[in-house]
Amino acid sequence: MADPGIPALAPGSTIGILGGGQLGRMLALAAARLGLQCAIYAPEADSCAFDVVRHFTLASYADEAALARFAQSCDVITYEFENVPAATADVLSRYKPVLPHPRVLALTQDRLVEKDFIAALSIPTAPYAAIDSESDIAAAVAKIGLPAVLKTRRLGYDGKGQRMVGKDGDPVSAFRALNSVPCILEGFVAFEREVSVVAARAADGEVVSFDVTENEHRDHILKTSRVPAAVSDRVAAEARHVAESIASAFGYVGVLAVEMFALGSDTGGRVLVNEIAPRVHNSGHWTLDGASVSQFEQHIRAVAGWPLGHPIRHGQVEMTNLIGAEVHGYARWLTEPGTTVHLYGKGEARPGRKMGHVTRVIPDR
Amino acid sequence: MADPGIPALAPGSTIGILGGGQLGRMLALAAARLGLQCAIYAPEADSCAFDVVRHFTLASYADEAALARFAQSCDVITYEFENVPAATADVLSRYKPVLPHPRVLALTQDRLVEKDFIAALSIPTAPYAAIDSESDIAAAVAKIGLPAVLKTRRLGYDGKGQRMVGKDGDPVSAFRALNSVPCILEGFVAFEREVSVVAARAADGEVVSFDVTENEHRDHILKTSRVPAAVSDRVAAEARHVAESIASAFGYVGVLAVEMFALGSDTGGRVLVNEIAPRVHNSGHWTLDGASVSQFEQHIRAVAGWPLGHPIRHGQVEMTNLIGAEVHGYARWLTEPGTTVHLYGKGEARPGRKMGHVTRVIPDR
Repeated sequence: MADPGIPALAPGSTIGILGGGQLGRMLALAAARLGLQCAIYAPEADSCAFDVVRHFTLASYADEAALARFAQSCDVITYEFENVPAATADVLSRYKPVLPHPRVLALTQDRLVEKDFIAALSIPTAPYAAIDSESDIAAAVAKIGLPAVLKTRRLGYDGKGQRMVGKDGDPVSAFRALNSVPCILEGFVAFEREVSVVAARAADGEVVSFDVTENEHRDHILKTSRVPAAVSDRVAAEARHVAESIASAFGYVGVLAVEMFALGSDTGGRVLVNEIAPRVHNSGHWTLDGASVSQFEQHIRAVAGWPLGHPIRHGQVEMTNLIGAEVHGYARWLTEPGTTVHLYGKGEARPGRKMGHVTRVIPDR
Repeated sequence: MADPGIPALAPGSTIGILGGGQLGRMLALAAARLGLQCAIYAPEADSCAFDVVRHFTLASYADEAALARFAQSCDVITYEFENVPAATADVLSRYKPVLPHPRVLALTQDRLVEKDFIAALSIPTAPYAAIDSESDIAAAVAKIGLPAVLKTRRLGYDGKGQRMVGKDGDPVSAFRALNSVPCILEGFVAFEREVSVVAARAADGEVVSFDVTENEHRDHILKTSRVPAAVSDRVAAEARHVAESIASAFGYVGVLAVEMFALGSDTGGRVLVNEIAPRVHNSGHWTLDGASVSQFEQHIRAVAGWPLGHPIRHGQVEMTNLIGAEVHGYARWLTEPGTTVHLYGKGEARPGRKMGHVTRVIPDR
């Protein structure tokens, strides 16, 4: 699955980004520092990424004429979210390279396809079984056991499209609560920590991963990331190896994140892959202030055909999301030494909406 | 000269920036990280700052209607260069606060007025004398001696508007070579190092300065800055004190830079002020990668009425400008660990044009 070599973009070239949220915004800011322009394409009029670029397109992902015009104005196209419709990627691909390659979208938009792909690499995941209809439920429960988590195969994020099924729970009503769409049942993993690795792969095959990050979620939304993760060197090496192997197996060009469960030492100290995000990732935001090269810069370098950077971490780093109304308290972070405030320029601070983040760096001395 | 308090801007507010070069561009990128919008006003169609904002105005600084519309779209207005015409600042001030206060422009646009202001603070400068016409030359030379440097009072930068007059040189022909415009004759200073201090002052009077930077020029253009400067603690403290005193005396709001000559220990280890830049400054670019808060962020915080940050330096830092065709060699810096590449998105790499810079950080261990 090697990608054909792409020529390095000259400074001043334009990278098109599908998606106008904070990830697109931070990608555009990273590109600007490297003298590259970005054009943003998004269907939401209040897209915060529009504010940091000269050229943007406000149009539906189904608008083939707008997509064609957009593609023609760009030198290469990338995306900030994994649910880009396949038809959208197809239209764009007719005009310009789309990176990471759209086949990765197909692999990661469906939890079942993604898990089968990972399993085929002999990389462990939580046990899982497909449930396409109610008639599959009994066999799935027999295979996986309870408690378990029922997840829609497509379009889940931040805990949406998931139902816990307890030891004595009712998987049928959980399935119906998810509108009886195709699902997978995942065995419940008694993990010690949730960790993630953000890895970049260049078109020439070089892979560079960041240090393993430890993540805490609240209400299914990432709240805090800490690096380095409190795991053994062996677990850290395994986690990075897993992420790097997946990037290579995808023939990936750009940055991806692999979320993993780190099991306790009593259960072998292994990591199980939870899910793959084929994009820059919230758990990598610490790299903006905590490392000499950020995940956003790595992604831009990769899709521009530039060499990857070799990040040096500035110390211990903690990233905290400002979610919903928490953003109104941003001012108290402004005067803390070593703390950096990022506000995304979004409008209304709705509950659960990621409005900004703060990063604290404690230098290693 | 205290400024009236300005209310803190809410995230999402718009800061207007006069000037569309790399300083405006980096100010806008810093503002974006804080959730603040920028609008750029510049008369050059190829202004590189236009590329990183949603709203810009391409118009002359004399276009009162365009200035009025621009001011009405902003919450506060600042500038990236010191030669903003007084009339331009006056028009804008009718509509919105202009920070730093335009009176600072008047003080720093004229070398004689600036030097008189500094002298009135009992801060040492090189000896100087005004030359308004040829009839002033003999007295000026008698006072200052030769060798000396003849400088136009207004509109000089990067060595433009200057003539060395050697021990046996002809000050009259130097004056004529500068079109006989009003000048000052400055005594030649046998300095040990050129240093600068970038200082920020908030509307509430708080002043925070960055570490003293040592600068090397080539062909009168800054080539390399290193921090910390190789000066004694006493000289460093004096340099910071000088910059902070000037910021306070101006009643300044924003970032300014003070360039100084550090004399050798045989001549008392003092610093003499060379010139003041009422804006972010090339010798402060190292703060983008070498400190937890950059000069650009400090300026944005100050003009937004936000508290200043308290920067932590990440180690020893060296900033090298990419001037003219040097920018074409940017790729070799991309893979050096701890090195950050900044390209300004300017078009043609003309000789003497600042096209980008690279920063190398060596962590203190």
